[in-house]
Amino acid sequence: MTQGLRPYGELRDRVRNNMAPLFSEQIELHGHIIDSLILPKVLDEILTGGGTFRHDASFACIDVFGNSPGQVDDIVRRLRQHGAEVVERKPASLAEAPADGVFPDEFYVTSNQPTFVQVGDQWIEAQPVTMDCGIAVDLELKQAQTVKFFQVRKGMKIAVGHHGIRVTPVQRSTDRKSVFEFMASNVSSEKPKSAVIREIAAEIRRARKEGGKILVVSGPAVVHTGAGEHFEKLIEWGYVNLLFAGNALATHDIEQALFGTSLGVYLEGGALADEGHENHMRAINAIRAAGGIREAVAKGGLTKGIMYQCVKHKVDFVLAGSIRDDGPLPEVITDVIEAQKAMRARLPGVTIALMMGTMLHSIAVGNLLPAQVKTICVDINPSVVTKLADRGSFQAIGLVTDIEPFLRELTQFIAASETSG
Amino acid sequence: MTQGLRPYGELRDRVRNNMAPLFSEQIELHGHIIDSLILPKVLDEILTGGGTFRHDASFACIDVFGNSPGQVDDIVRRLRQHGAEVVERKPASLAEAPADGVFPDEFYVTSNQPTFVQVGDQWIEAQPVTMDCGIAVDLELKQAQTVKFFQVRKGMKIAVGHHGIRVTPVQRSTDRKSVFEFMASNVSSEKPKSAVIREIAAEIRRARKEGGKILVVSGPAVVHTGAGEHFEKLIEWGYVNLLFAGNALATHDIEQALFGTSLGVYLEGGALADEGHENHMRAINAIRAAGGIREAVAKGGLTKGIMYQCVKHKVDFVLAGSIRDDGPLPEVITDVIEAQKAMRARLPGVTIALMMGTMLHSIAVGNLLPAQVKTICVDINPSVVTKLADRGSFQAIGLVTDIEPFLRELTQFIAASETSG
Amino acid sequence: MTQGLRPYGELRDRVRNNMAPLFSEQIELHGHIIDSLILPKVLDEILTGGGTFRHDASFACIDVFGNSPGQVDDIVRRLRQHGAEVVERKPASLAEAPADGVFPDEFYVTSNQPTFVQVGDQWIEAQPVTMDCGIAVDLELKQAQTVKFFQVRKGMKIAVGHHGIRVTPVQRSTDRKSVFEFMASNVSSEKPKSAVIREIAAEIRRARKEGGKILVVSGPAVVHTGAGEHFEKLIEWGYVNLLFAGNALATHDIEQALFGTSLGVYLEGGALADEGHENHMRAINAIRAAGGIREAVAKGGLTKGIMYQCVKHKVDFVLAGSIRDDGPLPEVITDVIEAQKAMRARLPGVTIALMMGTMLHSIAVGNLLPAQVKTICVDINPSVVTKLADRGSFQAIGLVTDIEPFLRELTQFIAASETSG
Amino acid sequence: MTQGLRPYGELRDRVRNNMAPLFSEQIELHGHIIDSLILPKVLDEILTGGGTFRHDASFACIDVFGNSPGQVDDIVRRLRQHGAEVVERKPASLAEAPADGVFPDEFYVTSNQPTFVQVGDQWIEAQPVTMDCGIAVDLELKQAQTVKFFQVRKGMKIAVGHHGIRVTPVQRSTDRKSVFEFMASNVSSEKPKSAVIREIAAEIRRARKEGGKILVVSGPAVVHTGAGEHFEKLIEWGYVNLLFAGNALATHDIEQALFGTSLGVYLEGGALADEGHENHMRAINAIRAAGGIREAVAKGGLTKGIMYQCVKHKVDFVLAGSIRDDGPLPEVITDVIEAQKAMRARLPGVTIALMMGTMLHSIAVGNLLPAQVKTICVDINPSVVTKLADRGSFQAIGLVTDIEPFLRELTQFIAASETSG
Repeated sequence: MTQGLRPYGELRDRVRNNMAPLFSEQIELHGHIIDSLILPKVLDEILTGGGTFRHDASFACIDVFGNSPGQVDDIVRRLRQHGAEVVERKPASLAEAPADGVFPDEFYVTSNQPTFVQVGDQWIEAQPVTMDCGIAVDLELKQAQTVKFFQVRKGMKIAVGHHGIRVTPVQRSTDRKSVFEFMASNVSSEKPKSAVIREIAAEIRRARKEGGKILVVSGPAVVHTGAGEHFEKLIEWGYVNLLFAGNALATHDIEQALFGTSLGVYLEGGALADEGHENHMRAINAIRAAGGIREAVAKGGLTKGIMYQCVKHKVDFVLAGSIRDDGPLPEVITDVIEAQKAMRARLPGVTIALMMGTMLHSIAVGNLLPAQVKTICVDINPSVVTKLADRGSFQAIGLVTDIEPFLRELTQFIAASETSG
Repeated sequence: MTQGLRPYGELRDRVRNNMAPLFSEQIELHGHIIDSLILPKVLDEILTGGGTFRHDASFACIDVFGNSPGQVDDIVRRLRQHGAEVVERKPASLAEAPADGVFPDEFYVTSNQPTFVQVGDQWIEAQPVTMDCGIAVDLELKQAQTVKFFQVRKGMKIAVGHHGIRVTPVQRSTDRKSVFEFMASNVSSEKPKSAVIREIAAEIRRARKEGGKILVVSGPAVVHTGAGEHFEKLIEWGYVNLLFAGNALATHDIEQALFGTSLGVYLEGGALADEGHENHMRAINAIRAAGGIREAVAKGGLTKGIMYQCVKHKVDFVLAGSIRDDGPLPEVITDVIEAQKAMRARLPGVTIALMMGTMLHSIAVGNLLPAQVKTICVDINPSVVTKLADRGSFQAIGLVTDIEPFLRELTQFIAASETSG
Repeated sequence: MTQGLRPYGELRDRVRNNMAPLFSEQIELHGHIIDSLILPKVLDEILTGGGTFRHDASFACIDVFGNSPGQVDDIVRRLRQHGAEVVERKPASLAEAPADGVFPDEFYVTSNQPTFVQVGDQWIEAQPVTMDCGIAVDLELKQAQTVKFFQVRKGMKIAVGHHGIRVTPVQRSTDRKSVFEFMASNVSSEKPKSAVIREIAAEIRRARKEGGKILVVSGPAVVHTGAGEHFEKLIEWGYVNLLFAGNALATHDIEQALFGTSLGVYLEGGALADEGHENHMRAINAIRAAGGIREAVAKGGLTKGIMYQCVKHKVDFVLAGSIRDDGPLPEVITDVIEAQKAMRARLPGVTIALMMGTMLHSIAVGNLLPAQVKTICVDINPSVVTKLADRGSFQAIGLVTDIEPFLRELTQFIAASETSG
Repeated sequence: MTQGLRPYGELRDRVRNNMAPLFSEQIELHGHIIDSLILPKVLDEILTGGGTFRHDASFACIDVFGNSPGQVDDIVRRLRQHGAEVVERKPASLAEAPADGVFPDEFYVTSNQPTFVQVGDQWIEAQPVTMDCGIAVDLELKQAQTVKFFQVRKGMKIAVGHHGIRVTPVQRSTDRKSVFEFMASNVSSEKPKSAVIREIAAEIRRARKEGGKILVVSGPAVVHTGAGEHFEKLIEWGYVNLLFAGNALATHDIEQALFGTSLGVYLEGGALADEGHENHMRAINAIRAAGGIREAVAKGGLTKGIMYQCVKHKVDFVLAGSIRDDGPLPEVITDVIEAQKAMRARLPGVTIALMMGTMLHSIAVGNLLPAQVKTICVDINPSVVTKLADRGSFQAIGLVTDIEPFLRELTQFIAASETSG
């Protein structure tokens, strides 16, 4: 596959530079080729087949009609999420927040795409890119900030309506040097995955080389399926910069480290020895007695496992609480809004996110990530993968597979490329 | 929803005829708006929002480049499935079939889209539209026929390569008067379904009014879930013209008619009385003793159920065999190729197909249907729906839901519209 | 089915009282009929078939052997969850909690079954019955309390080891007057559900008549699937005493009440009008501006929907936060441990729990409920149902089906039985 | 795990022989311990925990009561499937088949358990053990044969009613030396699978060593997921004696061998190159042109892949047709009843069956296998595994996992044990 990928850039450059010799044919398409999605599919086929085409960045000017001004307004507001601009431009309207934690009526709701606000005759980007926020504008500093409900203070100037706001969706490059741009959708359970996992390994290596932070979001299935040892290797080798998880992952990992079981099941013995919840509860108790995970490591009580490796290799982690939690462990942030803040504070610099075996945490983190962060979602449940990978971006891929063999193969590819350079 | 649909046609006519007063706004899009699928989404949003736009049937002329002539050839061959034509035109190449049941090398493989072959300077449509066939050309009669392996006779002239072949994909109309054109993809288990089922009821009524044949493809789950009575009503009311099923549907239906159980479960009593396979086997035996389903009805031994209604109301049916079958019933065609022929022979005139609770039969029938037949697939398993509804056409919708409540609601909507006119 | 159920009690009484005339046959079983589960299946078949059998409450005395005293200890500890008692009796061992929030080593971990502690020569029940707790014993008051981590105070006397502790598992009655005792496991998507739903309706009516509290645990799918109106009827008719849900259910319900959409989808128009997250955010903002749900109802801003009905009919509710939440609404308890406390405080008196369309909340609540509370779990995802219904009790049933038709049919059965008496 | 398993046999022998020193404790159980399944669970826990118990092969004599003789009869008929015998014994009733292919009324329907018919005062086993058959008795030869519908000839003596018929269900040994006896149910996607796969490898090696035939039933997912190379190794190493599959497996395997694609997807390149159905059709055409798979191998046209290895290593295979088939390949048996006969004829000697990635074929073969054949079912779809593994025997285990990593690990374990001896 990697060989198959190389020609694109070259071909494209040759076409751009009118270099010879190239093989070509001219084709024609007729009919509703745009709204029937035929033209995009055709261009897709050309790139997928290893070819390229002559094209220019496009421009379209469209007249939108409706039965009432309100309807046209509604349509245009939604079109903005796709980058549409109204031709007649005016500055964004601003209104004051009526109370702490409350937006003014008709506040503009952000997407996960880069968004700009027109203040005077200037376009200012709202920072950080986050969906489901309002935009607070500081007219003096000429700054725009995406704000969550809890950040709203009475009197803040908030963008309302949809005029003077421009969205620039992350677009697909035609270079296609990345596995993310190849995958139109998910890799189903019926597809071969080795080649895709090799590409993911390459992406993760590239992210590290380029200094991007690698975020892992993980559920307890990583421990249940026996994938913990592979995850530990990723940490040891420096491929995890940040871990977002819950009480369950940490507890099952520590139960495994202390007692050799996960939810009472001996990982060595398969489904054979079901101890019930006892070890689980004792693992929590042991860490509570020590005062926390870091303290348990410091005191020598916790000497292996994912959480141990995180402490040892100084990997920053956020453990967010849920109402299913037993315990919880002292590090768990039991207030969910505080947990969101803690996660959001650590996102700057993240360029790639690997989400494994957790719908709750993956969706929560997905809601915090800007569209340009590359996202890989792995789950054996196809509906989780569909939900997560379908974020309307060219930066997310989903794999329907078992987590243990996925991580085993991923670490093997990374190890191989480490030694080969 | 129906109200919401009406304005489209009017709006479109107003725009076409430049009639006033209309409300409009002009928007602009920049960047890779076609290959990033942004333009199609924008047009979609406008129609979905109840608006319309000024547009013309489009035309595109694209230069395709590759590293070798073979690569360009491969790409262009695939593009034809989307309706692309090469600008330099020449007649289709033909080669003789080397033996009965064997195509010549490089034979052109059809899709489920209307396909034309250039013979001399004439374009001839290959009939009937069927995927995974070759195209046999009769040079004297100027006819082209899609042929399956078993239909190939030594010496037949078969289209090879990809020149001189044109595909005209079924395109989405912008009228959007149909539920099929609204549904970009599937209706997941988490979406409300009543409105969609109402539209499907309207489509089925429309199909009957316009004289199209209504095909139902059904698995035994229709009986297991207790939906048999609703299905019977559809037959009684004349909304089923053709039934494709297997031994299992007929056997469980007859078991239910004779013994009140389905796979040993009393439908009245839920999961309470599991009789095992006995009634199932006795039902088969009773019909075999009578000489067949039609004979059992004629002799008064079978007096209710889906198969009884089919016989009574002269609904044509094909029961195709599978290796899971017990018995089978005398009407079952145990040779799968013969069963395919029997189904294919009955397809002309079918304009709508309702597939419920069977992956095997639904895929088999889906492979036989031309793309313009409207297809509704209902299953509680999302992966079945995904597989079936994803046929690359704007004519297929899938619903992830329980079959019994689906059919109950469908018959209620049809009954209501019957009485209201 | 209901007719089919009546004879059991009579038959049993006749057998107990040696009344004539009865039809009977004597059967024999040989071999490993107990550990191969053959005897239980045989007794099950007899009851399922409408018969009864002569039997006595049984007694077994078993010698357990192991390779080491530790192994025997481990085995016996697990056997206690099934009600096994060691013949040699001694009082429970108690140890002091070493710190607030920390149990002593080897603390006994409770199940969801009634559990007794031997203090002196007295057996005291640990209250309330809750799994994954320790047992704190008050030697003066002769009381035993199940305590969560956060309830532990330094110096509390906590039961350790497994001597002097007796579990009395909830047993299946042979009366079988209840649907819960009929359902060995789940009702799969392929089974007829009407009869089961009728029985569930009868159970819910019985619970209310007998003065038990009816708890509903619900996810937002109730609103997405269009089932909100049915749920509202249950509330109006007095069949909901307590609602446990999250920010999502309340927000989508309020979005639906204020804007007619759920996650931007018009329920009337199916999947047609996807407004994105805007209405969702505006719904939250409107309630925050009002000061809360109850305030919004009081001020006339919220006049329909599930939450409105809860306020109007004084149904107590707990909204627990999760890290996916937008907003949240003012009533949401964002600290998950506080949310657990709030739910646990409302459980006394609950005799039946209906869990619909939420894995997170259902598991969380399942962990708080004693085994004797009858639990019904409804979800279209079979893995959720399996996880929840498989609680090792004869009091839980699961239905794999769509929530909207389930609730529609449930309310129809309840309405019918209301009018018929 | 293997260590954990060894003590059972020794412990059991020690207990049987009253050898010392052993550690033991005596426990008591009260209440409805049998029909509430408490006693079986307790014994299960003891064995699972590595202990053993003193027990005897059990015996139970139960009085069954009903409201009518018919009801008692119905119940007793079902109880026979579990091995129950009526105390009053009489020979089996026989009736003549009224016509070819038709059983007499009330014919006894077999299960997949060993079944004996009383002829005179002799118990004769019906051969071969197959479910959903009638039993034809040859009074002169004193033989009983299980017969399918198509085998019935007019005048055959067929067992009717339920007297004089005895079923001896396969029982669970308490030795527990086998993974099949450990697995009460399925291994879900959330459990670690390495240990179980190691045990399956050991079972397969044991089966071969003991001279049993190893049957593999496989769907095309083995090829799609890229597991073909592992499967080929199993064949090369002599671990496959018999292959039951369909046209799809063979076609995709041959497509992969000839073109490097599976359903148009290059296995090397992941989901990148979707060629559509062309290669698939050309693969079929190439084999049809050669005259068949064996001929294509003989002529040197097919030089790798699963089917090639089967031909090379003389592995017998049955390819059964389905109505979804394209082509089909010449070896495919298109008549489903003929295909059933072909499979049934090859079953004698099979002791272990590995079913992967096919619901249709797995259920079809499952219906033909006697209960004592050990069955392993692997699929990523939990509902397939549930359906197949739930055959009411202690001889079936199911794994919810991806097929490629499963087969990769299985071959690694087999390779490791080969070299280690």
